[in-house]
Amino acid sequence: MAKELTSRSENYSQWYLDLVNKADLAENSAVRGCMVIKPYGYAIWEKMQAELDRMFKETGHVNAYFPLFIPKSFFSKEADHVEGFAKECAVVTHYRLKNDEENGGVVVDPEAKLEEELIIRPTSETIIWNTYRNWIQSHRDLPLLINQWANVVRWEMRTRLFLRTAEFLWQEGHTAHATKEEAIEETIKIINVYADFAENYMAVPVIKGLKSENERFAGAIDTYCIEALMQDGKALQSGTSHFLGQNFAKAFDVKFTNKEGREEYVWATSWGVSTRLVGALIMAHSDDNGLVLPPKLAPIQVVIVPIYKKAEQLAAISEKVNSIVVELKAKGISVKFDDSDHKKPGWKFAEYELKGVPVRLAMGPRDLENGTVEVARRDTLEKNVVALEGIVEHIEKLLDDIQQGIFNKALEFRSQKTTKVETWEEFKEVIENKGGFVSAHWDGTAETEDKIKSETKATIRCIPLENELEEGKCIYSGKPSHQRVLFALAY
Amino acid sequence: MAKELTSRSENYSQWYLDLVNKADLAENSAVRGCMVIKPYGYAIWEKMQAELDRMFKETGHVNAYFPLFIPKSFFSKEADHVEGFAKECAVVTHYRLKNDEENGGVVVDPEAKLEEELIIRPTSETIIWNTYRNWIQSHRDLPLLINQWANVVRWEMRTRLFLRTAEFLWQEGHTAHATKEEAIEETIKIINVYADFAENYMAVPVIKGLKSENERFAGAIDTYCIEALMQDGKALQSGTSHFLGQNFAKAFDVKFTNKEGREEYVWATSWGVSTRLVGALIMAHSDDNGLVLPPKLAPIQVVIVPIYKKAEQLAAISEKVNSIVVELKAKGISVKFDDSDHKKPGWKFAEYELKGVPVRLAMGPRDLENGTVEVARRDTLEKNVVALEGIVEHIEKLLDDIQQGIFNKALEFRSQKTTKVETWEEFKEVIENKGGFVSAHWDGTAETEDKIKSETKATIRCIPLENELEEGKCIYSGKPSHQRVLFALAY
Repeated sequence: MAKELTSRSENYSQWYLDLVNKADLAENSAVRGCMVIKPYGYAIWEKMQAELDRMFKETGHVNAYFPLFIPKSFFSKEADHVEGFAKECAVVTHYRLKNDEENGGVVVDPEAKLEEELIIRPTSETIIWNTYRNWIQSHRDLPLLINQWANVVRWEMRTRLFLRTAEFLWQEGHTAHATKEEAIEETIKIINVYADFAENYMAVPVIKGLKSENERFAGAIDTYCIEALMQDGKALQSGTSHFLGQNFAKAFDVKFTNKEGREEYVWATSWGVSTRLVGALIMAHSDDNGLVLPPKLAPIQVVIVPIYKKAEQLAAISEKVNSIVVELKAKGISVKFDDSDHKKPGWKFAEYELKGVPVRLAMGPRDLENGTVEVARRDTLEKNVVALEGIVEHIEKLLDDIQQGIFNKALEFRSQKTTKVETWEEFKEVIENKGGFVSAHWDGTAETEDKIKSETKATIRCIPLENELEEGKCIYSGKPSHQRVLFALAY
Repeated sequence: MAKELTSRSENYSQWYLDLVNKADLAENSAVRGCMVIKPYGYAIWEKMQAELDRMFKETGHVNAYFPLFIPKSFFSKEADHVEGFAKECAVVTHYRLKNDEENGGVVVDPEAKLEEELIIRPTSETIIWNTYRNWIQSHRDLPLLINQWANVVRWEMRTRLFLRTAEFLWQEGHTAHATKEEAIEETIKIINVYADFAENYMAVPVIKGLKSENERFAGAIDTYCIEALMQDGKALQSGTSHFLGQNFAKAFDVKFTNKEGREEYVWATSWGVSTRLVGALIMAHSDDNGLVLPPKLAPIQVVIVPIYKKAEQLAAISEKVNSIVVELKAKGISVKFDDSDHKKPGWKFAEYELKGVPVRLAMGPRDLENGTVEVARRDTLEKNVVALEGIVEHIEKLLDDIQQGIFNKALEFRSQKTTKVETWEEFKEVIENKGGFVSAHWDGTAETEDKIKSETKATIRCIPLENELEEGKCIYSGKPSHQRVLFALAY
């Protein structure tokens, strides 16, 4: 194969970068830490966006757009938020360039200095709550259920394509409610939407849970998250939904008159998922031959490769294929017939394996004679010769099987890689050698969590929502604990 | 009516701002020159995006995403481009904030100064062509037909919601071709897509033409445009498509090996439309009662208002309405049944007129008895009582009629406001009093164009593509001319 990947067992991290590069998903740009999302990678993101957008709208949300820039002073208004976000930011200080008379080119015009610097949004709570102040007067103006699709910038020092980049694309929901209960309900509704999307579209099983105080969003009362497990045994936080209490309403003075005529501060949530999900998708399923994409998010679901020597063979195959293409498209299945003649079938097979196309059909002269076609599935690499009669129904069912099969495999992997431990020795041993999720008792203090992190690099990924209460002792401090939490090394 | 607008005849400019504000389309943000696009305004932009995106894909284009930031030095590489774009830009100079120990809050960390400043993209030719250098080696890599949906920033001093804002949303296509002919063909293909969209979706008639040298995109060989006429007689440039020749390929050293094995520079186009189109849509059709939206871009196409006094009347009306709603939705028609009980029907009528909902149904107890419903169309404000039997087909046809009616009205207006003039006196008189497009002979020089502009503020909007050649004399210089061009005051 021309485009060989480093194998996962040899170097997982290099395998990932090779794959992102060779499958034409993304690349580093000329600007440090910023990526170019290439058409094939962007097509996956577009499919994610379309499904998520539909799910948000079905749950009553609407889209809007708020400015890229945030005045510096806005960050100081919420005490925790400023600590978390107003640090590694891109800062706009000037608004004009001028010709460089001495050296040629252009230089920043020192006379065009902004009175107050503008920060490129790392997240938009501050500018949005400053806006909401004018939109909300009465309980009749609530709830506000708004989402935006946008780019944000966090000046990360160590970046990795899709997983952590200085600029990334995301959606951020910002909702406003009359009561605490309603805001909490919204926070949980969204974490359920995210889990539904992860499991039923990305085919990635996730654990829904609450973050510990250390890992909470800066400015939140509670952060709910979904955590996924990658093939190297590391966890990846895939989406978060924050209950913000009245923190931002107080910081930006957003009050409403309730049904009884009294003024109250508004209750808030915010929630987001990003292009990081593309990284999660790649790392959860793909193999040493390339991408493995769940059919529901694959830009091309079926590829058809003709096998021929003479032009008249191609013509006969094309005629047969074209009617299959029409039928598949009528079912909403995306299909590509690759009849390009400057590449050999073997090259095409390898290329579409690399690109993760779920189903490949190959048709040659003998198939034409026999009324058959060769069907290969990407996830298991199985090949079968199948009758052309009923092929569309066969493919429909196969796509469903693949979607489910990929999910089951990831779920099975996660079960194997989730370990209950009772002692500190066991904990260290599992984190170091086996990896995956470690379910253990913890005394509930940030201090213990910090110590565990500094000794093992493992963090608490979440306190699972569907946790059984169970008396036990903290693996580190030995103090009493009432439930287990999930630890892991994480991206 | 609670939300009265300034009338168009009194003050067109204030009418526009009132309408954008009161119909909840957009508002100014806390950041100078940047707007907040509110949910109803954003819903119109989303409908535009969906149609344009479909049209781009049908013509073979794919989406991708390039960085928000452009290194300052990139702008200096194309001589004309730097003059046009590297001036009023947002400049990022630092990447970190720190706590202000003296005054509280945060300050820019002077130690976190970037070695090279980053410019927020005002347009992306430079960063994209710098990227294309690595994507293009052979004629087999061509054409590249890529579009991106993105935000851009141009530090405009005088801004107006949607029409001219510091940050705006747009799409920018950037294509690469092996031959000049193919690149020109692409440029024209896209201006035709834009005209199709403007006329058949926005219901705004446009003139396709070429820009004069003065009005050309900085770095282009030729700029094609579509020009629309607003109700105040001013023109609005609604989309541009640029043939860039080999300028950017030379600036960024992008070469390919042609079929004969020789190295050549790549040929380029770029093209874009922006949230400015929302402004054009508003100004082209709306009236003193509010928005008039073409059905194909209206977020809500049909609103149904119940007229009742007692709860049982509402129940009976709702039952009838619900079955209509189901039928309309099945036809892909977006419909809202507004049964909110804290607002009177009269308030609702005014509100949906303001919001430009194309068709309004009102149903009261007498309608129930008679098997009828009152149907009002927004564009003409006509009302009719119509039989419920066959109402869905009636609405379908009505939506088509409204779409066509709005277009015809705008076309008729443009015809009336397009004037052929032969003399300079006539020219000045028409520009000053009648407005609209003025078709006149011009000697083809930038000098004359500049003088006409400084004396009348009128600019050459375009040299129409479907122009008849005709000998004449320049209205200003008296020199010979071979065709008329279109002048107008413009946004």
